Amino acid sequence: MSEKLSDTGRKTMLAPLVAKGWTIDDDRDAICKTYVFDDFIDAFGWMTRVAIYAEKWNHHPEWSNVYKTVEVVLTTHDVDGLSSLDVKLARKMDQLAD
Amino acid sequence: MSEKLSDTGRKTMLAPLVAKGWTIDDDRDAICKTYVFDDFIDAFGWMTRVAIYAEKWNHHPEWSNVYKTVEVVLTTHDVDGLSSLDVKLARKMDQLAD
Repeated sequence: MSEKLSDTGRKTMLAPLVAKGWTIDDDRDAICKTYVFDDFIDAFGWMTRVAIYAEKWNHHPEWSNVYKTVEVVLTTHDVDGLSSLDVKLARKMDQLAD
Repeated sequence: MSEKLSDTGRKTMLAPLVAKGWTIDDDRDAICKTYVFDDFIDAFGWMTRVAIYAEKWNHHPEWSNVYKTVEVVLTTHDVDGLSSLDVKLARKMDQLAD
C-alpha cells in the first residue's frame, strides 16, 4: 500500500521531475507531462513499454494519444493524491523516452 | 487520399456503428465510443492490436486510456470530417473488441 507523499518527499522528489518538464496539478494533486515523439510508432512503442511497467507495478497512468503526442497524468487514487509510485513511474517514463 | 463521407454514405455506414454504441459528434464531425474491458491488460492489449492496423492504414485514432477504459474519437483531419477510413477503423475496433 502506497502512502501520500510527505512535504519533505514532495520537495526532494518533485523538483527533479519539474526540471524534466512535469507540471503539478494542485487541484487533483497529480503530475502531468506531454511527450512528443517522432511519429506514431515511436509514441505507441513508448506507451507499450510503459504499459508493461505500469502493470508490473500495479500503477497505471491516465493518458491520451494523438498520433505522435502522448499526454500523461499520474496520481494515486488509493491515497487521493501523489505517492512515491507516481514518482517511480514518472522517472521510468522519462528514462524510456530518453 | 480519403474523401469526406457523402450524405448517402453517412446514412448507410454510420447507422450500424451507432447501433454498436458509437456516437456522432456533429461539432467536430467525428465518431466517439467508450470501450470498457475487464482490466488494463485487456484494454492495452486491444489498443496494441488497433495500433498496428492504425499504422498499417495510416489512419490514427485520438484515444485516452484510464485502467480498463478506452475512449476513442475518430475523424479524418485531411478532409476536416468523417471519411470511409473512420468507418473502416471503427469496424475493426469493434471486431477486435468482440
